[in-house]
Amino acid sequence: MKCEIIAVGSEMLTPYRQDTNSLYMTEKLNGLGITVAYKSIVGDRLNDIAGAIRTALTRVDIVAIIGGLGPTNDDLTREAVVQALGITLRRDPVQVAALHSRAAQLRISMSSNNLKQAEVIEGAIVMPNKNGSAPGQWLDTAYSNYRKIIFMVPGPPNECKPLFDEECLPRIRAVAPEKHIATRVLKAAMIAESKCDELLEPIYKAYPDIETTILAHAGDIQLNLSCTKGALAVAQNRVDELALKLEDALGEWMYSANGETLEQILMYYLGIRQATLAVAESCTGGMLSERLTSIAGSSLSFAGGVVAYSNALKTSMLDVSEELINRYGSVSSEVALAMAEGIRNKTGATLGISITGIAGPSGGSSDKPVGLVYLALSDAHQNEVVERKFNGDRERIREFATLQAMDLVRRRLM
Amino acid sequence: MKCEIIAVGSEMLTPYRQDTNSLYMTEKLNGLGITVAYKSIVGDRLNDIAGAIRTALTRVDIVAIIGGLGPTNDDLTREAVVQALGITLRRDPVQVAALHSRAAQLRISMSSNNLKQAEVIEGAIVMPNKNGSAPGQWLDTAYSNYRKIIFMVPGPPNECKPLFDEECLPRIRAVAPEKHIATRVLKAAMIAESKCDELLEPIYKAYPDIETTILAHAGDIQLNLSCTKGALAVAQNRVDELALKLEDALGEWMYSANGETLEQILMYYLGIRQATLAVAESCTGGMLSERLTSIAGSSLSFAGGVVAYSNALKTSMLDVSEELINRYGSVSSEVALAMAEGIRNKTGATLGISITGIAGPSGGSSDKPVGLVYLALSDAHQNEVVERKFNGDRERIREFATLQAMDLVRRRLM
Repeated sequence: MKCEIIAVGSEMLTPYRQDTNSLYMTEKLNGLGITVAYKSIVGDRLNDIAGAIRTALTRVDIVAIIGGLGPTNDDLTREAVVQALGITLRRDPVQVAALHSRAAQLRISMSSNNLKQAEVIEGAIVMPNKNGSAPGQWLDTAYSNYRKIIFMVPGPPNECKPLFDEECLPRIRAVAPEKHIATRVLKAAMIAESKCDELLEPIYKAYPDIETTILAHAGDIQLNLSCTKGALAVAQNRVDELALKLEDALGEWMYSANGETLEQILMYYLGIRQATLAVAESCTGGMLSERLTSIAGSSLSFAGGVVAYSNALKTSMLDVSEELINRYGSVSSEVALAMAEGIRNKTGATLGISITGIAGPSGGSSDKPVGLVYLALSDAHQNEVVERKFNGDRERIREFATLQAMDLVRRRLM
Repeated sequence: MKCEIIAVGSEMLTPYRQDTNSLYMTEKLNGLGITVAYKSIVGDRLNDIAGAIRTALTRVDIVAIIGGLGPTNDDLTREAVVQALGITLRRDPVQVAALHSRAAQLRISMSSNNLKQAEVIEGAIVMPNKNGSAPGQWLDTAYSNYRKIIFMVPGPPNECKPLFDEECLPRIRAVAPEKHIATRVLKAAMIAESKCDELLEPIYKAYPDIETTILAHAGDIQLNLSCTKGALAVAQNRVDELALKLEDALGEWMYSANGETLEQILMYYLGIRQATLAVAESCTGGMLSERLTSIAGSSLSFAGGVVAYSNALKTSMLDVSEELINRYGSVSSEVALAMAEGIRNKTGATLGISITGIAGPSGGSSDKPVGLVYLALSDAHQNEVVERKFNGDRERIREFATLQAMDLVRRRLM
């Protein structure tokens, strides 16, 4: 079965805002074996919305409409559906009562506008919205003699997602042919995308029944595998077989066989090793600490961090000697090592990691160009330093360096 | 004039990837007075792409197609355009030569697939791509007796954006009716969105000729004003008049009258005051330092930071006394003040700012719930501390706290 997602709202045709609900819905729909074949974004204009619905009805089985269900004059999704299908809207007394009771509960006065939200499309089922006043609607109908499902959910993500999960998904599961889909997400760090492609393409091309997607961002590679079969165990075996071969090929580059982020993996390994990690950052300016502490419960394994942008701070907070900085420069393997040792000693952490480099756009030289980064890792037994040259703008260089630092720690812990 | 943007690529119909080029293009198109009336996303299937192009030709003047121009069998945009229009493709010897010369320059062997990229649509102008092998194409044609522009640009953002800027925009400017559009972007921090709406709506509603959009994210408010008139000076006067009234109403909440980020504003004020700022973070875990150092040149004003998650580190790195922590708890106004003074003294910075709080999801109590955050600001003359209770998940609480910290510094500097 094929689905089209129509996001309604003029704000999503500006440079400032983007539909994100559809990503969430796509994941859930794919899980039921339903393909999202098209996405459309239309403004708050009746004819545009109705036109988009008619187009969708000619090419998919399920039309998912997000937004345009509120109380204002700009909310036109209900009107557009009845226009597209040539049917009618009626004001539903049950919904009117529900709106009044909601307003009373929240102790707000209800404007007459609000009653728009009590209008129900002929033949539609009303789907209650626990987090807002606009209910969703579910319509199981026919168009040109084909069965078509049209469902409508409100636009605010905190209303859209629970309503979709609780009201739409069970209904979709009931109409969709039963499919058995197995998926896996593998992740790898610091392998070049082109190298990764070269390495993996011959392997996954031999599994044409498995859909394999490779995504890459600043050194982080994500492989999505998906396979549909008559029985789940068959699909799962097939996906696991391919995953095993890809794991073998990726070897040490791979950090997750089940979709975890690198920071989650680090926190997991630090936890089981009862180890703590401390961070000394220069060019990344706190990005590494920020990513590590984005994980709930990270306080157990994250000992703390210093953002030592200036040489003076490298000396006073990390005990890096002035002489060392003067001799080798603050962007050097020697200073990186001293920073990692310094933060480990200062915090008493099991592991100290440091990053010093030139994120640009200025500050580079022919000797030490923008993108040059030194990273060092220190524990009680061993120190190690890595020199890297990353390409891209300031943001991208900082992202690459942060990922490289986490990957160094991961390799030490494994 | 109206435009539809069609993004081509099956990967954008997965849960993992989103079209972002269209936001960039929309901003530039709006600047020429062109409305983006629809956005469509289609997969790499010939009939789907051709169908989307035909639909677009019935409803807009300009069809912008992103992606599907590469060398693989999945790259079908050229074929879809000729199918939609009933015209032909020809292999262009000039483009074949260009591909060979590019391959020779990069010392790569060219597969025969690559020659697909030398195929030119009947009547189209080839637009060279400096950053990749797939050129763009520009077609000024007719459909059902109406003049229509169809242009195609490659999908990778680093190819799409420069090609669009350099090759498409001048051509669009030449065909679009001359319009004079004045815009302004105002920004405010830490005012509730509902309060902001209530305050500003009566003001901007009195300027129906100005399009006003309010966006809010974790305490950060952005107001976009746009006005189209027969002469630029008239539009500019009108927008400036409204901006002045909005500025008056926003008062101290407003931090930018020209769209700068709060971190840019801080760096600007720190620069002109020849002041430096040091940061002591607990629950934000480096987010504040990361945002401040995302600004190029921040090393001049950013003295450094400490991420002191543990009490031990608050004592050893920030000189917060153990007794103070034991008496008041690490999330308290007393500890926040000591952290701000501590980081200022340790770094010698003009200003020290601190954040300590409970980002959750666990760690809260009835006394000190998740979302409770203390922020303190210290300079040689004055200490100040603020208690806030933020709502939302861990990520959102950290974002709110980071913005609040920056806003405290801004107010001190102004």
